[in-house]
Amino acid sequence: MFVTFEGGEGAGKSTQIRLLADALRERGRTVLTTREPGGSPGAEAVRHVLLSGAAQEFGVRMEAILFAAARSDHVEEIIRPALLKGAVVICDRFMDSSRVYQGVTGNLELPFIEALERVAVNGVIPDCTIIFDLPASLGLERVRRRASAAEAPAGQEVELDRFEKEELETHEKRREAFLDIAAADPKRCHVVDASAAASDIAAAVLAIVEPLLPRSGGGGPDTEAAQ
Amino acid sequence: MFVTFEGGEGAGKSTQIRLLADALRERGRTVLTTREPGGSPGAEAVRHVLLSGAAQEFGVRMEAILFAAARSDHVEEIIRPALLKGAVVICDRFMDSSRVYQGVTGNLELPFIEALERVAVNGVIPDCTIIFDLPASLGLERVRRRASAAEAPAGQEVELDRFEKEELETHEKRREAFLDIAAADPKRCHVVDASAAASDIAAAVLAIVEPLLPRSGGGGPDTEAAQ
Repeated sequence: MFVTFEGGEGAGKSTQIRLLADALRERGRTVLTTREPGGSPGAEAVRHVLLSGAAQEFGVRMEAILFAAARSDHVEEIIRPALLKGAVVICDRFMDSSRVYQGVTGNLELPFIEALERVAVNGVIPDCTIIFDLPASLGLERVRRRASAAEAPAGQEVELDRFEKEELETHEKRREAFLDIAAADPKRCHVVDASAAASDIAAAVLAIVEPLLPRSGGGGPDTEAAQ
Repeated sequence: MFVTFEGGEGAGKSTQIRLLADALRERGRTVLTTREPGGSPGAEAVRHVLLSGAAQEFGVRMEAILFAAARSDHVEEIIRPALLKGAVVICDRFMDSSRVYQGVTGNLELPFIEALERVAVNGVIPDCTIIFDLPASLGLERVRRRASAAEAPAGQEVELDRFEKEELETHEKRREAFLDIAAADPKRCHVVDASAAASDIAAAVLAIVEPLLPRSGGGGPDTEAAQ
């Protein structure tokens, strides 16, 4: 079972991944949480180059291919082996982020993005994708608040990464693109309202994921609870 | 007009590229010579990582994608702009090397290699590919002689790069793979015997390339000769 979380910045994906992982573990599941770009040693090496903006001078195509290189390593080294062992894998961003960030707002043609996606995922398609939907202005506000509250030394602003710095209009375009993906693939994609309270979102996410879980091998939640 | 030179190590490609470029310039053509991996600032950055073997630990897939990233940058930044200006571009290694090195001896599946190739070349297919054919043992011997003669301090052996170090059997497999490519695409690919004398090879290469050149804009060879 492979679950991906997608959506714009500041949508609260990482909090919700933690909550879902906890809930599934309480139900006796083995859960692996991971993220993109990165998630494996090779991919994390590329992640730094990508998020710092160092690859930007090489143009959008090369950058998109580097994202694919990182994804391929992540899939083959981490995600596929965990799935083969029967774990639930929850990944923060995956192929839909590439479609949106490189394809839609990066202005790369669809056949290029599709060919790269095939190469990178190599058959590992999410069983379920949760798309966190939020007005772009609210997402940006959250990112800024989080940055100044959590990480900055007192009175000093934390530097945003290159994706967080982009214009509101671009963020709005991405929101629409994520919703388009959801509309085109309703079997895989589920949209949740990310402006709701965290506990309500967590309940909504669990209600989507739980019915999709395969029957666990060693006994269900009842067995676990009885031990 | 886009010409690529392919073949195993020690086949004398770089000498022949220089000779062909000189011959074409004497005929009034604008010629750009370049090489892979590398050829553009972004691609040269990746080249170092690839040839040092540092990317090997990340697995053959990620490595193949990094080659594609380098090629994409090279195509978009250097090759396509030069072709659009009417230059003859001669490139030392291109997509056939990926088919052979990553596809055949790297054991990656054909659909993966093909998808990457489409992404990387983005429509820029060679008009003419010269395949330098040489028994693998002879090629290896030349590489070793060249290394110790040209670059090493007296009495010290130069270190070979990771591709040059591989076993004779692998080199022989690559030779067969290049010949298979030539047989499958006889319109684009032309095999030359790289064990012949350099001057004979140069004449053979020119005899292949010259008839394929588009009529030059400002007058043909005769006009040049009359000036």
